[in-house]
Amino acid sequence: MNIKYVLKKRPFGIPEADIWERQTEPIPQISEGEVLIKHHYISLDPAMRGWMNEGKSYIEPVNLGDVMRAGTVGIVEASKHPNIKVGEFITGWGGVQNYTVTNGKGWHKIDAKLAPLPMYLGVLGMTGMTAYFGILEVGKISTGDIVLVSGAAGAVGSVVGQIAKLKGCTVIGIAGGQEKCRYLTETLGFDAALDYKSDSFVNDLKQACPKGIDVFFDNVGGEILDLALTKLRRHARVVICGAISQYNTKTRIKGPGNYLSLLVNRATMQGMVVFDFADKYLEAAQHMAGWIQSGQLKSEETIIEGIDNFHNSFLKLFSGDKQGKLLLKVV
Amino acid sequence: MNIKYVLKKRPFGIPEADIWERQTEPIPQISEGEVLIKHHYISLDPAMRGWMNEGKSYIEPVNLGDVMRAGTVGIVEASKHPNIKVGEFITGWGGVQNYTVTNGKGWHKIDAKLAPLPMYLGVLGMTGMTAYFGILEVGKISTGDIVLVSGAAGAVGSVVGQIAKLKGCTVIGIAGGQEKCRYLTETLGFDAALDYKSDSFVNDLKQACPKGIDVFFDNVGGEILDLALTKLRRHARVVICGAISQYNTKTRIKGPGNYLSLLVNRATMQGMVVFDFADKYLEAAQHMAGWIQSGQLKSEETIIEGIDNFHNSFLKLFSGDKQGKLLLKVV
Repeated sequence: MNIKYVLKKRPFGIPEADIWERQTEPIPQISEGEVLIKHHYISLDPAMRGWMNEGKSYIEPVNLGDVMRAGTVGIVEASKHPNIKVGEFITGWGGVQNYTVTNGKGWHKIDAKLAPLPMYLGVLGMTGMTAYFGILEVGKISTGDIVLVSGAAGAVGSVVGQIAKLKGCTVIGIAGGQEKCRYLTETLGFDAALDYKSDSFVNDLKQACPKGIDVFFDNVGGEILDLALTKLRRHARVVICGAISQYNTKTRIKGPGNYLSLLVNRATMQGMVVFDFADKYLEAAQHMAGWIQSGQLKSEETIIEGIDNFHNSFLKLFSGDKQGKLLLKVV
Repeated sequence: MNIKYVLKKRPFGIPEADIWERQTEPIPQISEGEVLIKHHYISLDPAMRGWMNEGKSYIEPVNLGDVMRAGTVGIVEASKHPNIKVGEFITGWGGVQNYTVTNGKGWHKIDAKLAPLPMYLGVLGMTGMTAYFGILEVGKISTGDIVLVSGAAGAVGSVVGQIAKLKGCTVIGIAGGQEKCRYLTETLGFDAALDYKSDSFVNDLKQACPKGIDVFFDNVGGEILDLALTKLRRHARVVICGAISQYNTKTRIKGPGNYLSLLVNRATMQGMVVFDFADKYLEAAQHMAGWIQSGQLKSEETIIEGIDNFHNSFLKLFSGDKQGKLLLKVV
């Protein structure tokens, strides 16, 4: 049986469980040229919240009545495709469901022996690619730069900070809670980690970067972005990767009132969407795999079992009640 | 007699006349190596408002008790300098006063026969340089780009739009009032001009750029910046040159709530300060002079006579009650 979560209505604010319709159906049959994929893991990402909204964005919104879009890794269970064999592992946009039938377009095979499956949705997947191109190509870091990362214990932020360390930068992470902060400094090797929930946060940031920052990699938006703008050094780069603090807002998104710091400091604020770097994914994945193998890049996942935990798990992205990459195990 | 306007206290909101102390003194004497300059024109610029504030910016604030900083052009009236002769014309940071004594450092001679003096503070001065480097090097325009300019009838905006036209762009200007809009389309050759004071402005903008914009050159900030962000095309560039709508705010500056359009459209918002391009001023001035000579670049000034009109004239920058470059004639 295939269980699938279909978007029934568009959320306003924090998504309620009633936006989903849980549907079941027999395991679908394949036609000539198709394969049946049984998903093992489903990727849960902040970007999904954006896809639930109506209107123009960098990707089409999920239509009402469609299975919720999500990245997946799984195994080929049946094949009438010339180049994809039963037993092969494969990743693509499988959606929040147990099975997908596809002609293979937009999917690609992965080697389950080289790395654990969850990693193909995390550090070796879109998440890792976002971090890699965001900090290297948009952030344009070089040795000695002072790099500030928000959402630093998250899937993207934790990789961004580690890559910046690898490249010889001083890295300061912002995360929610002392436990995450300890993880950043003790396990991932960040130079400093600041708890934005602490009363002393504004002062902590001041202490942590007395010379200011060369790069701010922002996953969070809101007050943290606005504060970070006051720390820019000349020619600083602000990478706008996400704004998780604002995705569920019921009012207008809060703009950064300190944006004129861009003028004063001749700084740049640039948005990024990882899909633009698709032609270089392979090269990036090879670098990332090398760093993982040498122990220079650590990957952390929070894995929750059971497709029917989808909705509650998804909300952990916004409550912060998880660490690293958030995944649903559905096999 | 030298009349000078000294900053007595820092303004809050729109500057009141009582922030200035009008001082008089005998015409100053020069020592060996110095020259005495009698100013003919004083440049009035929105940036001056920023220099009146305390605190770190791209340039030191004007100290209380100092003559207000301003660009000037004038004539050398006395000289004990080996390389600067009486009767030569010279431009520099003379300030809001009739006379300056200097050793010549930071000043440079101009040829009063090649162009009218006011032009050396306008299109051939900092204003023109800001427009030139802002639209070409920060805006990175190329043929076919759709360029939106705010403050388009102002000193910088009017030059930005004309350069963009010269480079084969479609140019839409935003200005206050029908008269300025007509000037932009009929005299300066803009493709369209929109009156932000009109009730139909939001819709006018929609009509004027149905395909969106590749470059937004912003002199204004506030609501206009926020609206322009909704029109960005992919890889658009937003040049933050100024934010005149916000300079006199008594509350926090309004940040652009639509900044996530940078993410969706992989766009860049970049601040600029003209001083960074000083090593290329000469090259730019030569281009500008050529365009003026060929009639491809028009320069407009609003010239007000009398140094004691300084304060009221300065306020015209914020009321919009002027066109093109605003200058004070003091001789």
